[in-house]
Amino acid sequence: MRKLFAEFFGTFWLVFGGCGAAVFAAGVPDIGIGLVGVSLAFGLTVLTMAYAVGHISGGHFNPAVTFGLWASGRFSSKEIAPYIGAQLIGATAAAGVLYLILNGGGGTEFAADSAGAFASNFYESNAFDPKTYYNGVGFSMGAAFLAEFILTMFFLIIILGATDKLANGRFAGIAIGLALTLIHLISIPITNTSVNPARSTSQALFVQGEALSQLWLFWVAPIAGAIVAGFIYKNLLQDNK
Amino acid sequence: MRKLFAEFFGTFWLVFGGCGAAVFAAGVPDIGIGLVGVSLAFGLTVLTMAYAVGHISGGHFNPAVTFGLWASGRFSSKEIAPYIGAQLIGATAAAGVLYLILNGGGGTEFAADSAGAFASNFYESNAFDPKTYYNGVGFSMGAAFLAEFILTMFFLIIILGATDKLANGRFAGIAIGLALTLIHLISIPITNTSVNPARSTSQALFVQGEALSQLWLFWVAPIAGAIVAGFIYKNLLQDNK
Amino acid sequence: MRKLFAEFFGTFWLVFGGCGAAVFAAGVPDIGIGLVGVSLAFGLTVLTMAYAVGHISGGHFNPAVTFGLWASGRFSSKEIAPYIGAQLIGATAAAGVLYLILNGGGGTEFAADSAGAFASNFYESNAFDPKTYYNGVGFSMGAAFLAEFILTMFFLIIILGATDKLANGRFAGIAIGLALTLIHLISIPITNTSVNPARSTSQALFVQGEALSQLWLFWVAPIAGAIVAGFIYKNLLQDNK
Amino acid sequence: MRKLFAEFFGTFWLVFGGCGAAVFAAGVPDIGIGLVGVSLAFGLTVLTMAYAVGHISGGHFNPAVTFGLWASGRFSSKEIAPYIGAQLIGATAAAGVLYLILNGGGGTEFAADSAGAFASNFYESNAFDPKTYYNGVGFSMGAAFLAEFILTMFFLIIILGATDKLANGRFAGIAIGLALTLIHLISIPITNTSVNPARSTSQALFVQGEALSQLWLFWVAPIAGAIVAGFIYKNLLQDNK
Repeated sequence: MRKLFAEFFGTFWLVFGGCGAAVFAAGVPDIGIGLVGVSLAFGLTVLTMAYAVGHISGGHFNPAVTFGLWASGRFSSKEIAPYIGAQLIGATAAAGVLYLILNGGGGTEFAADSAGAFASNFYESNAFDPKTYYNGVGFSMGAAFLAEFILTMFFLIIILGATDKLANGRFAGIAIGLALTLIHLISIPITNTSVNPARSTSQALFVQGEALSQLWLFWVAPIAGAIVAGFIYKNLLQDNK
Repeated sequence: MRKLFAEFFGTFWLVFGGCGAAVFAAGVPDIGIGLVGVSLAFGLTVLTMAYAVGHISGGHFNPAVTFGLWASGRFSSKEIAPYIGAQLIGATAAAGVLYLILNGGGGTEFAADSAGAFASNFYESNAFDPKTYYNGVGFSMGAAFLAEFILTMFFLIIILGATDKLANGRFAGIAIGLALTLIHLISIPITNTSVNPARSTSQALFVQGEALSQLWLFWVAPIAGAIVAGFIYKNLLQDNK
Repeated sequence: MRKLFAEFFGTFWLVFGGCGAAVFAAGVPDIGIGLVGVSLAFGLTVLTMAYAVGHISGGHFNPAVTFGLWASGRFSSKEIAPYIGAQLIGATAAAGVLYLILNGGGGTEFAADSAGAFASNFYESNAFDPKTYYNGVGFSMGAAFLAEFILTMFFLIIILGATDKLANGRFAGIAIGLALTLIHLISIPITNTSVNPARSTSQALFVQGEALSQLWLFWVAPIAGAIVAGFIYKNLLQDNK
Repeated sequence: MRKLFAEFFGTFWLVFGGCGAAVFAAGVPDIGIGLVGVSLAFGLTVLTMAYAVGHISGGHFNPAVTFGLWASGRFSSKEIAPYIGAQLIGATAAAGVLYLILNGGGGTEFAADSAGAFASNFYESNAFDPKTYYNGVGFSMGAAFLAEFILTMFFLIIILGATDKLANGRFAGIAIGLALTLIHLISIPITNTSVNPARSTSQALFVQGEALSQLWLFWVAPIAGAIVAGFIYKNLLQDNK
C-alpha cells in the first residue's frame, strides 16, 4: 500500500509540476519560462520524487515505465494494474487541482490561450497556436508516433541502464529526471511531449474533444517503445553473465 | 548557537539570492534572466547552503520547513522558536542589504518597476504589472491559498522523503534545492511564490501596504501545507517497522 | 559487442537529442528553447547515457574522445576503428530518424528555416541566418579551427581529470555532460559547435553542399585538440608516481 | 608544479568559458543565451574543473578563494603568490585566445557591441548599454563594492562549508560551481559580476580605459569579503571541538 501511495504522490507531482508550469508560466510575455522552463519542470518532478519516494515504490510515475521494467524482467506482472491505477488517479487529481487554481485566475479562457490547451498532447490539426508555431503546420500522426516511440524507448534504456546493478546507481534519479527534461527539449513542438500515458490521460479528461480522440496514440506509442527498450536492454546491453 | 548562525546565514542567502535575482536581473530587456532565472536562483540558494551548512543546522531556512519537520516527529518543539527567530533576522537583514544596493542603482522607483515590487508576494489586486501579465487578472485568494498549500505540502514530502534514513540521503541537497526551483517554475505568476513565511515577511516589511496586509496568507498556507505533509509522510509513506 | 551497441545507442542519442532539440525547438517564436536549450540538450544526452551505458563501453560517443583517451594511454589502439564505426552508424541513423520526423512536419523547407540547416556545422559564408546573426559576418576558418581545437582540448582534459583514479569519479558523468553544455554555450554562434566528428558527419550527409566540403575541419580540429589534451594531461597533470 | 598547471588550466577555462559565452552568445537576437546562459557558463567552468583538477590543486581558480582559504587556516601563506601568479597567467592567456577568435568574427567592433565590452567589470558610468539597461543608470561605487563584498563572502562560506571535513564533501564541486552561477544570476546587471580579481584583470588588460581604472575595486572588495568569510566560518560556524 505504501508503494501505491508513493506512485500516487509521484504522478500527482509530475502532472501538477510539469503541466502546471506549462499552463501558468510558459506563456507569460517577455519573462515567461518558455519551453526550456517547462522541460526543466517535468524533469525536476521526476528527479525530486525519485529521491523522495524512489526507495518506496521504485519511482515509476508512468505506465510506460511500468511496462518497460516488466518487459526487461525486473517488475512483476501482478503489480502492473495497481501501479497504473495509482498513477492514473494521481495524475487526474493533479489535473483537477490545476483546474481549480486556473478557475481562480481567468479560468477556461486562460487555459485555451495557453500553448497546448491545458498542456494536453496532440498531433496534426490539434497543433500549437498557428500564429506562433510553424505557420500552423502540425506534425503528422506518423511523425508523432515515431517521435513518442523513439523517445520513450531511449527513456527506458536510460532508466534500465542507470539502475543496472553494475551501474553507478545512486545517480539514477539525476540521470532519469534530466532525461525527461531532455525529451521535452526535443519534442514539445511535435506532440507537446507525452512519453507518459497517465499524463496524457489526465489532461485529455479535462480538455475533451480531439485531446480525447487522439489519446490512443499516447498510450500505444510510449508503451510500445518502452517494451522494445526492455528487450533491447536485456538482450543487447545487459551483462547476463 | 552554531545552528542559529547557520540558519541566519542560510536564510540571508535565500532572500539575498532569490529576491536579489528577481529584483536586479529578471526584467532586464532582451537578455534578462526572466522567471526561469529567478526559479533557478531560489533553488540554488538552498542547494548551495544545504551542502555548506546543512551538516550544522539541518538546513531549514524556512519556518514552514521547521514546522513540517516537527509535525513528522523529527524536530524538537523547543527549538522551533529560536530557529524561526534566526530565519526572520537573516531574511530581514538580506532585504536590508538588497535595499541599500538598490538605492545605489535607481532606488525605490526601480524597485516599483520590477515584476512584483521588491519581489514581494501577492494575490488578487496586488498582481504583476497588468501590461505584461494576464491582462491584469490576479489569482483569487482561494487559488493563491490552494497553490501555496499544495506546493509547500509537496516541498515537505520531498524533504522528508529525501532525508529518510532509508533514502539515498547524500543527494537530498540537490533534490530539495531543485524542488524549490520547480515550485517557482510553477507558481511565480500566481503569488510570486512564497512557500516560506520568512521570505514573505522580509520583503513585506520594506514594501508595506498590501504586501503587509496579505502577509497572513503566506504564513498560514505554507505552514498548514507543511504540517499536513508531516502527517502524510509519517503515516502513509514512512516505513515504520 | 555489447560495447559497440552501447556506443551506437549513445551516439544515436547524442545526435537525436542535441540536433533534434536544435531543429525542432530552438527557433519557436517567443517560447523556443534558444541556444541555452540546445546547449542543455547536448550536455544531457551525454550525462544521461554516461550513467546508462558508461559502465558498458566507457561512454565515448565521439571519435575525438576515443582518440584523446588513446593518446593518454587509457584506450587500446585496436579498439579505435570499431568504436568510431559504431559512433558513425549511430549518428547517421539518428539523423535519418530526425529527417523522417521532420518530413511529417514541414520537411526540408522547415529544416532550411532552422538556425544552421539541420543543425550542421559551418564556418565563414556558411554562417547562421544573416538577419539574426552578427549582420551576416561568419567567423573565419582560422577562428573556427582555433575554437574547435581549444574546446575539444579542454573537453578531454575534463574527461581525463574527472575519470582519473585519484578523482571523485562517480561524478564524472555530471562533469563531462555539463562540460558539453558549457562548450555549446560558448561556441554555437562560431561553428554551431562540433567537438565531435561523428555529429558533424551525420548532419553533413543529409545537408550536403558546404556542410560536406567544410567537414574536414570538424574532423581535424577536434581530434588534434583531443590528442594534445591526452599528452597534456599525462605529462603535466597526472600523478605518475 | 602540477598544482600550478591545474590552477593555470582551471582559470583559463573559467575566463574562456564564462567570458567567452558572454562575448559570443549572450546577445544573439531572439535565441541568445542571455544572462541565464552566461551565469550557467561561469558556474559550469568551476563545476567541471573542480571535478577534473580539484584533486590536484584544490581548485581555487580565483585569488579571492586563495585568500579566503588562507584566512580560514586551510591554506599556507607560502603558496599564495605562486597560486595567484598561475591564475593571472591562465586568465590572461584565455582572454588572448578569446581576442584572437573574436578578430576572426568581426573583431573589436563586435566586442564593443556586446553587453559589457569583452565581458569586463564596471560600476557607475561604465555601465551596460544605456539603450537596454535601466535607462543608463549605473550602480554607484558603493553599491558595487557592497555587492561584490557580500557575494564573495557568501561564495567563500559555501566553499568552506561544503569542503568541511564534517560535510558531504564529494558534492562540493556541484555546490561551489552552482554557487557561482547563482552569484551571476544576481549581479551581472550591477557590476557584470567579478568576485574574482583574476577574471577582472584579464579582461581589463584588453579593454583598457575605465575597465583598468576601476580594476582596484574588483581586487579589494572580493578579497575583503573572502577574508571576512574565512574568519566567520572559522569562528561562528566551524565545529572546533
